[in-house]
Amino acid sequence: MPAPELRPRLTVRFSRPSGGHYPVFVGSGILRHLPRILRRFAPAHRYFLITDSTVARLHGRAVHSALRKSGLRADFLMVAAGERSKTRESKARLEDRMLALGGGRDSAVIAIGGGMVGDLAGFTAATYLRGIPFVAVPTTLLAMVDAALGGKTAVDHPRGKNLIGAFHHPKAVLADVQALRTLSEREYRSGLAEVVKTAVVGDAALFRRLERSTATILSRHPEALAEVITACCRLKARVVAADEREAGLRVILNFGHTLGHALEHLSRYRLAHGEAVAIGMVLEARAAEAAGIMKRGEPGRIEALLTSLGIPLTPPKRLSAARILAAARVDKKSRHGTLLYAVPRRVGRMAGMAGRFTRTLPAGALAAVLKQSTE
Amino acid sequence: MPAPELRPRLTVRFSRPSGGHYPVFVGSGILRHLPRILRRFAPAHRYFLITDSTVARLHGRAVHSALRKSGLRADFLMVAAGERSKTRESKARLEDRMLALGGGRDSAVIAIGGGMVGDLAGFTAATYLRGIPFVAVPTTLLAMVDAALGGKTAVDHPRGKNLIGAFHHPKAVLADVQALRTLSEREYRSGLAEVVKTAVVGDAALFRRLERSTATILSRHPEALAEVITACCRLKARVVAADEREAGLRVILNFGHTLGHALEHLSRYRLAHGEAVAIGMVLEARAAEAAGIMKRGEPGRIEALLTSLGIPLTPPKRLSAARILAAARVDKKSRHGTLLYAVPRRVGRMAGMAGRFTRTLPAGALAAVLKQSTE
Repeated sequence: MPAPELRPRLTVRFSRPSGGHYPVFVGSGILRHLPRILRRFAPAHRYFLITDSTVARLHGRAVHSALRKSGLRADFLMVAAGERSKTRESKARLEDRMLALGGGRDSAVIAIGGGMVGDLAGFTAATYLRGIPFVAVPTTLLAMVDAALGGKTAVDHPRGKNLIGAFHHPKAVLADVQALRTLSEREYRSGLAEVVKTAVVGDAALFRRLERSTATILSRHPEALAEVITACCRLKARVVAADEREAGLRVILNFGHTLGHALEHLSRYRLAHGEAVAIGMVLEARAAEAAGIMKRGEPGRIEALLTSLGIPLTPPKRLSAARILAAARVDKKSRHGTLLYAVPRRVGRMAGMAGRFTRTLPAGALAAVLKQSTE
Repeated sequence: MPAPELRPRLTVRFSRPSGGHYPVFVGSGILRHLPRILRRFAPAHRYFLITDSTVARLHGRAVHSALRKSGLRADFLMVAAGERSKTRESKARLEDRMLALGGGRDSAVIAIGGGMVGDLAGFTAATYLRGIPFVAVPTTLLAMVDAALGGKTAVDHPRGKNLIGAFHHPKAVLADVQALRTLSEREYRSGLAEVVKTAVVGDAALFRRLERSTATILSRHPEALAEVITACCRLKARVVAADEREAGLRVILNFGHTLGHALEHLSRYRLAHGEAVAIGMVLEARAAEAAGIMKRGEPGRIEALLTSLGIPLTPPKRLSAARILAAARVDKKSRHGTLLYAVPRRVGRMAGMAGRFTRTLPAGALAAVLKQSTE
């Protein structure tokens, strides 16, 4: 039916910046350089400094007064600490206050805090007057190695994490490892799980380094940390450069996350993100091993490293395999109801084949592994 | 202070589709081809058909059943008609329902309605799972010539229009002039104001055509309408292609809008958008004429055409010049508190100079013009 009416009268073409780049600063005590970084990479008429109650107590006053001293106009906006603040309602309250303060297109957002603050503040910046710049100042290990890079911003929804969001890249990332000194042991180790994931996914040398220098890492040695964080950022940057929108390669970063997100959700966030991902990695690796996708023995190596870093690997009791798989299906990583996993072939090497970086895992292998570990 | 710590450890590079294009279909009775257009330009596992109560009554059932007949899976989501539905709360309710229905990344949105529906549904699509495709089916003249093209999506805020939003282009636009038959006379004429604006801004031939064929236009002759709409879309497409993010040229489309938005807001939306813009155009043109920016006599020509098209040009009573200017300053088009206007040099020719397409207007000229017209 080649009806003439179906010829478009015209075609709208649009161009946009075909890409971009932003610097990642990693070091010890570099938070004091924030004003210079803002002036250079995100010059603005005024800044909205978004943070949470915990971070505000630890670093807020210092940062705020540093900004004021250097002559930058900055307003402090605080949300309650915890994942519960990562909602559409928190975002709306931030917008209300930014508008009430008269913030125009020439303002910028500074996100100081963990992944929650980065995701929430980044998403707020993404849609404020259709988008204003933001600078990410991650203060947790998890945020430094994962959340702050890659341009993903979002809020959670009662039905799942990160369901409403946007791609919006920061203008610069500033990771001061000094901030990690104040993390609780649990939060710190949860971040290490994401470091291990990064190593498994694409950096065998980093994995061996972690195996060798467990004690140094656990003592939070600043320069060792800076190097580990830089290695993680480098891998993530490489992946994001190749695939911003998660059409292909980028999904390799989801190793452990298909089951991890489900466990995190089912635990009602009593499991920390890294803890859930650690369990997810072990389960997905074991199922991949059983299915002949992953080299024999590798799941054991991953499990041993996680254990030596003091990361608990026990899934919540009373979760059946069926419930975990059902929860995983609700996640964005399912397509037509089929669960897709990003699993490695061996440490440092993903199982990508012919441009596909996810695969299904045999239901039998998964159920067996899940049953074993949740009994 | 070239501190070594201020060297970035790495630079994140990201690429994104460097641009894109989408077809605009304009014709009479072409709504029945929607399923083919969806299959070709926005293939999806399921569709969310977003519309308002008025449009649903007029076209909803037909569209819905056409989709079902052609084997496409579509769910109907309805919001109350009127600008009042263009809020963060409406967007949240749409998201809740789309998630409850299990819409994944392989779903797409169809926005059927006026500018309100297009902006709301487009913005909902922009942030749903960080962005899913949408197709725009504008059913008002205003939406066909303006809102549906250009990728701007947004919701309103109590402090002003379109303050929270995103750039998100449709995959295709389908404008069926048959839909215009059901518009009220007032709504239709309000759309004509935006047609006149387009002509003033960049199409002198269209302006003369409107002057010549007022009666044909007012009778809503389908082919004449299709041609006028196509001309408007063509100009807008040219402008958007040159400047997606409103860094330069695109602001010329804001002629009449600096004061128009303020009037619309102050009237509490009792003035229709086009009515407010029509008054804004006349006021801005007269002030520009008084300031020697616009050719003498052109404001009179614009006013005469608007009048012959039956568009009322009287600002609401009891609005002082000071109040109008204060309201305009809250708008996104002010920078550091200075009002910027996109005003033409003459019909069909904007006053852009050296890459700048907005300018300030002398406070005296503005106040005089405003005083005269609001007395």
